Amino acid sequence: MNAEIIAVGSELLLGQITNSNARFLSNHLAELGINVYYHTVVGDNSERLKDTINIAENRADLIIFTGGLGPTKDDLTKETIARHLGTTLEMDHEALDSIVAFFERAGRAMTENNKKQALVLKGSEVLVNHHGMAPGMLYKTETHTYMLLPGPPKEMEPMFQYEAKPKLAKLLNQADVILSHVLRFYGIGEAELEDRIQDILEQQTNPTIAPLASDGEVTLRITAKTNTEEQAWKLIEEAKATLLERVGDYLYGYDNDSLASKAIDLLREQQKTISAAESLTAGLFQSELAAVAGASWVLAGGVITYNEEMKISQLGISSEVLARFGVVSEETAVAMAQAVRSKFNTDISVSLTGAAGPDAHGDQPAGTVWIGIATEEETKAYRLQLSGMRNTNRLRAVKLALSYIIRTLTDGNARKI
Amino acid sequence: MNAEIIAVGSELLLGQITNSNARFLSNHLAELGINVYYHTVVGDNSERLKDTINIAENRADLIIFTGGLGPTKDDLTKETIARHLGTTLEMDHEALDSIVAFFERAGRAMTENNKKQALVLKGSEVLVNHHGMAPGMLYKTETHTYMLLPGPPKEMEPMFQYEAKPKLAKLLNQADVILSHVLRFYGIGEAELEDRIQDILEQQTNPTIAPLASDGEVTLRITAKTNTEEQAWKLIEEAKATLLERVGDYLYGYDNDSLASKAIDLLREQQKTISAAESLTAGLFQSELAAVAGASWVLAGGVITYNEEMKISQLGISSEVLARFGVVSEETAVAMAQAVRSKFNTDISVSLTGAAGPDAHGDQPAGTVWIGIATEEETKAYRLQLSGMRNTNRLRAVKLALSYIIRTLTDGNARKI
Repeated sequence: MNAEIIAVGSELLLGQITNSNARFLSNHLAELGINVYYHTVVGDNSERLKDTINIAENRADLIIFTGGLGPTKDDLTKETIARHLGTTLEMDHEALDSIVAFFERAGRAMTENNKKQALVLKGSEVLVNHHGMAPGMLYKTETHTYMLLPGPPKEMEPMFQYEAKPKLAKLLNQADVILSHVLRFYGIGEAELEDRIQDILEQQTNPTIAPLASDGEVTLRITAKTNTEEQAWKLIEEAKATLLERVGDYLYGYDNDSLASKAIDLLREQQKTISAAESLTAGLFQSELAAVAGASWVLAGGVITYNEEMKISQLGISSEVLARFGVVSEETAVAMAQAVRSKFNTDISVSLTGAAGPDAHGDQPAGTVWIGIATEEETKAYRLQLSGMRNTNRLRAVKLALSYIIRTLTDGNARKI
Repeated sequence: MNAEIIAVGSELLLGQITNSNARFLSNHLAELGINVYYHTVVGDNSERLKDTINIAENRADLIIFTGGLGPTKDDLTKETIARHLGTTLEMDHEALDSIVAFFERAGRAMTENNKKQALVLKGSEVLVNHHGMAPGMLYKTETHTYMLLPGPPKEMEPMFQYEAKPKLAKLLNQADVILSHVLRFYGIGEAELEDRIQDILEQQTNPTIAPLASDGEVTLRITAKTNTEEQAWKLIEEAKATLLERVGDYLYGYDNDSLASKAIDLLREQQKTISAAESLTAGLFQSELAAVAGASWVLAGGVITYNEEMKISQLGISSEVLARFGVVSEETAVAMAQAVRSKFNTDISVSLTGAAGPDAHGDQPAGTVWIGIATEEETKAYRLQLSGMRNTNRLRAVKLALSYIIRTLTDGNARKI
């Protein structure tokens, strides 16, 4: 089964929002073994949407639409599809009841245009919207399957995952087993990693091996297609062993691991707690840890000292150290890490101080960052010279700090990271 | 001039990354008055890329490609375009020199496959890559303009902005002036806002008025197209006055304002400082403020007390308050806000405590959040009941906290927010 994902919405073409729905859906379709060959974005324009549907019908069996199901005049996805397929729209009374209830709960008056949201394609299976008002639809013809989903991700994502995906899996009636396993690396560039495994990449057939770089990380996705789950895992494990022999030094995790989730897993395994003193990142390091459910097992908290004064009053950094070495220095990073570790009484601590940009910080150019890591045994500091924009630098500093935590916790492991 | 943006990369179709480039480019093209009618994503597959180019040539004058210019075997954008257009690739020696220099600076060995990045379409204008290795290209035929840009946003964005955009503006030789102005609202739903201005939306011709909802915010974009800049601003100002009469109560800012930048602007204007005590958001509130350049004028810092113990030891919250009312309570939010305000000696302070989810916090269900705002005069607390996933709830709590700060700082202003 081949799929195309069509996002409908002029706000996407005006660059006001990002098509994150296409990513979410593609990820889940890949899991089902459905090939996605195209994403298309088209505006709130009936003619152009019709042209887009015609093109998609020539190159996909499954066409998934997101957006254009809302209450306003420019929401015209289902109207256009109904005309194109020669069917009509009818009121779904359950959806209407739920819209009325939605307004009652919110204590807001329901305006007339909201009723339009409860209209569905005649003959379609309705997908219930538990997080918003407009229902989704699944509509089948002899040649194609059409799925209509709402645009807002917080409505679309649970609707797809819990309502639509099981129905698709049933439609597929899969003969083959397709399994994927992702290896995650940090601290090596994409070209260098690929160069080291060039011959393996050239010989790949089943499993396939796909490298990918993003935000300083590189991943290798191993995908096996065979008759049984057992056989698929065997193929994956063999490929994995060969790959790790070459580049295992840079491996930090698998599949849905992130640097943050990996750091939290290691801390939990070793029953260690963590705290942080943040300056340029202003809480982003701790927030990344807290984005992982279960962070409360290991994250005690920390201090944000965004200006110099607070480094003195809140962390007790000596004004002499600050005057002599500067706020962005090895000495300050070390003092901050040690201070927060003792103040929050944790096993390990991190400090981040630097010039995020666009401005320099005294004689330290934009992009200079010091990261301190303190444990009971020792305190280390690492200097970074980043070259991105302000918020790219802040995020990169956080990711590097996470990678140093992982390295510190796995030192016995002979991994470089 | 009509444009189509084609992103090339199987990782997009596998859902491993989001096509944020299309958003960035669309935004800038809209500023130039170039209509973007389609975004397409296609994999690292020469045949399908060729089909995509054929379709795009039928519906766009300007075709912008992102991705597939890298060093690896599956990077095939320029090779495919060269074949399609009947031209060849040639080595760009400046680009090659800069690639060699890039590896020298990074202190890494340059592998052979990296040289391929310096090949460009014969007859194209080269766009220099100041943040990476692969150069971009601008190639013109009698009927179409083709632009090739690298995939990584941190390379593509500055290349487009500083190298490509001025060249496009020159190509356009614009007769008309097109200006846009965005009004930003918080605290009102899209349907309700639209309902209040329905008659205006129906009568719009020039300027046009486009509503958009995203992440709890609603915006109205007013776009005027006319002969002079002065005339365009006059049209925009008239439309703006009419709109604000109806929905001005919910306005918080304009154009590139965000809730965070608006809060910082107000604090700077009023020469006030801010601090925060964060629990469920674990630094995300302060990090959002610090994402705005210039935050250091007003943000002193704060404390992250991720577990109960730290609320006692770091903020001096009484264990009786915590035992009697719970960690997620009005009383705790008030005590946290007051404690951090006094500890960091700021004019205003914020506290955030709640259950982000997926788990409840004692008898408080997931999604329950208390936000405290303390000033010299008074401390207020607001209860939220959010219904999203863990990280949606954390972000929504931060945005609401920012809106309460704005409200607190503009109270004399008769705005609801």
